[in-house]
Amino acid sequence: MEGASGQRPLGVAVLGHGTVGAEVVNIIREDALDLQERIGAPLELRGVAVRDASSDRGIPAELLTTDAEALVRRDDVDLVVELIGGIELPRTLVRAALDAGKSVVTANKALLAAYTGELAEAAESHNADLYFEAAVAGAIPVIRPLTQSLAGDRVDRVMGIVNGTTNYILSAMDESGADYETTLAEAGRLGYAEADPTADVEGFDAAAKAAILASIAFHTRVTASDVYREGMSSITAADLTSARALNCTIKLLAICERISGPDGRDRVSARVYPALVPREHPLATVAGAFNAVVVEAQAAGRLMFYGQGAGGAPTASAVMGDLVMAARNRVQGGRGPRESKYAKLEIAPMSDIVTRYYVNLQVADRAGVLSAVAAEFATRGVSISAVRQEGAGDGARLVVLTHRATDRALADTVAALENLESVTAVTSVLRLEGSAE
Amino acid sequence: MEGASGQRPLGVAVLGHGTVGAEVVNIIREDALDLQERIGAPLELRGVAVRDASSDRGIPAELLTTDAEALVRRDDVDLVVELIGGIELPRTLVRAALDAGKSVVTANKALLAAYTGELAEAAESHNADLYFEAAVAGAIPVIRPLTQSLAGDRVDRVMGIVNGTTNYILSAMDESGADYETTLAEAGRLGYAEADPTADVEGFDAAAKAAILASIAFHTRVTASDVYREGMSSITAADLTSARALNCTIKLLAICERISGPDGRDRVSARVYPALVPREHPLATVAGAFNAVVVEAQAAGRLMFYGQGAGGAPTASAVMGDLVMAARNRVQGGRGPRESKYAKLEIAPMSDIVTRYYVNLQVADRAGVLSAVAAEFATRGVSISAVRQEGAGDGARLVVLTHRATDRALADTVAALENLESVTAVTSVLRLEGSAE
Repeated sequence: MEGASGQRPLGVAVLGHGTVGAEVVNIIREDALDLQERIGAPLELRGVAVRDASSDRGIPAELLTTDAEALVRRDDVDLVVELIGGIELPRTLVRAALDAGKSVVTANKALLAAYTGELAEAAESHNADLYFEAAVAGAIPVIRPLTQSLAGDRVDRVMGIVNGTTNYILSAMDESGADYETTLAEAGRLGYAEADPTADVEGFDAAAKAAILASIAFHTRVTASDVYREGMSSITAADLTSARALNCTIKLLAICERISGPDGRDRVSARVYPALVPREHPLATVAGAFNAVVVEAQAAGRLMFYGQGAGGAPTASAVMGDLVMAARNRVQGGRGPRESKYAKLEIAPMSDIVTRYYVNLQVADRAGVLSAVAAEFATRGVSISAVRQEGAGDGARLVVLTHRATDRALADTVAALENLESVTAVTSVLRLEGSAE
Repeated sequence: MEGASGQRPLGVAVLGHGTVGAEVVNIIREDALDLQERIGAPLELRGVAVRDASSDRGIPAELLTTDAEALVRRDDVDLVVELIGGIELPRTLVRAALDAGKSVVTANKALLAAYTGELAEAAESHNADLYFEAAVAGAIPVIRPLTQSLAGDRVDRVMGIVNGTTNYILSAMDESGADYETTLAEAGRLGYAEADPTADVEGFDAAAKAAILASIAFHTRVTASDVYREGMSSITAADLTSARALNCTIKLLAICERISGPDGRDRVSARVYPALVPREHPLATVAGAFNAVVVEAQAAGRLMFYGQGAGGAPTASAVMGDLVMAARNRVQGGRGPRESKYAKLEIAPMSDIVTRYYVNLQVADRAGVLSAVAAEFATRGVSISAVRQEGAGDGARLVVLTHRATDRALADTVAALENLESVTAVTSVLRLEGSAE
């Protein structure tokens, strides 16, 4: 059948019919005429792979199938949209699609962060497109600006809030003064946190996104296992109070940085952790479930991208943009940007990373404590920017803010502090990111 | 000569060697190895067209030429970067380049806003690319997100601060309380305003950008002459004071909106004017010479893009991104997105636009004035949200804030107020944009 434009229709297979899949199917069906004009050929939905084809999903029953692999291999499927969870099943299906020369659009960050090399090579050798704008920061265009708009620039840093669940929790804790457990439970009730929130609160989701961002920003293959990761489940109401006193808030950040190695060669740092962020930093104002990514490039300077990082419709918007581009490439010939990994930069170990730190100590309330504590910092070359004593007696605490130092020097200092007789406990250690200094 | 990658080198001609041109030439020469890896072939600078080839510009003399037209037509030139001012000369050169099948990257918003149709058709019929990310908001990726990332979504509104000079002036007036003339003079001294600031302060520059944004957001050809335009040179310190009292600031906005016409068909509104913006709106916090664009789309929700909208290096970053993409297309085959004008929406007249208004009146200080003034609003269906009296006696003023109404109803009301015996003068009328209501 020929479309109105005279072009052969392009067949689309959608794998998964959850929140995002349902929106994608909906847009393909509702906006068919607009999509056809933008692509130059009609898009035709060939099938939707689901686990259970018996439930009513508001789409014609003949489109539903439980055999995703057969759907992907159909001759009349040109484009595959992968929106199922997990890693191994989507890996098999995406490989099958690419090996059959079909272009793939996926929102699966975990898959990409683990197997981007394998998938990119499959796409390359079968001359297919592999697009994944929706894998990082939902509707916010981040992948395309990094791979295309900044293709002639030199990116130095990508720093973002890329997980809505943790940002919702941290924003709510900052506003209400409530503790982590209470706020997490509330987030679950409101639909902002999943029943098992581990991937979000322990930073696995953000780490997968950091791997993807670092790969494309620095033209180097970075996988999730290369990303240093700390979760935010240990952040307390007291940490947020201390942060406020320092005119900061706390955000779970994904940071990808180009840093200079000891041999003068650039290295890549990719890391995820909760950090103090000064209130005047653009990321500090990103509240609730919103996402934002700040990119610093040599010619462009600092750019910020802000919007909805999750949810069915916003993620579907990103998927549909990719789908239209992959479809256009089929009609016009040509391909989207390929994997760029030529720089092959080494991954810097966390111990070499230089940043600032906030250290909260429970101490004995007596003369000489500050001097003993300060000496441990000084011995390891960690310069103190500010110290404040809070409380008195058994509740006496010292809040120390440092200047820039290596993670190694700070870790050594903390180990020494823990052995100091006048220090009862090192209550928390957090990094401070995004300060002007 | 074959490049290291085995691919034939791609020849680049740069037209213009001002602030941006010099940065572009610099990046092409300094980052040659990175660019080659990203493109898949070396870029080779064939020539730089300048008005005066005698001055020392730090580039080899044999690259300089005053014959731009001959440079553009050279057989060994594949890509042309147009960075000269004006409209007619660049139009001739860009046409010549496209007609010769060369891809073109331009930052020239005035050219595009006047002749986008002609140029897009030339690109189309010669299978060349025409990229122009740098024409709107400098380094901030806006064109690519709209044409590609949101290609599967439905954009409802694009609202931005796209002129750094006027934003610098309005931010400074808001901070200092100084008047327009003083602030403009200061902006000129600091290099934020040109010797002849007309294109900036009268909104011509922003209107050209609005035309480009509206065209791509709504798949409709919109030229600069379709854009309703008011400059900001009449904004007074008193306006900013009144705005502050309403918890607003004043920004020169470019607004592109999809609105529903009387026949139910969508129409496009593209307009530029200074407007009150509530302090809590993301655009209110964009200070100094920075630019920001807010895009509202049906699936994506609200997105914001923020960064440096002008300057040599930021603009060069956008130009280089386009250049790398156009060069990649030459190497890989295929083309970038073409002009999309299928929707052919009509342009809505300004009188049909619905927004809120701030009206500042000088009035006689006596009983019954407010009632007479309110009656004029009510008669024309313009509902008042708030009224405040300022001053007394000869200096008595009424500041009226309305609910949403058509521009026609507001204009009629203002005309009637001017004829009202108790109104000495209508001091200023500004629109209020971006309020939640």
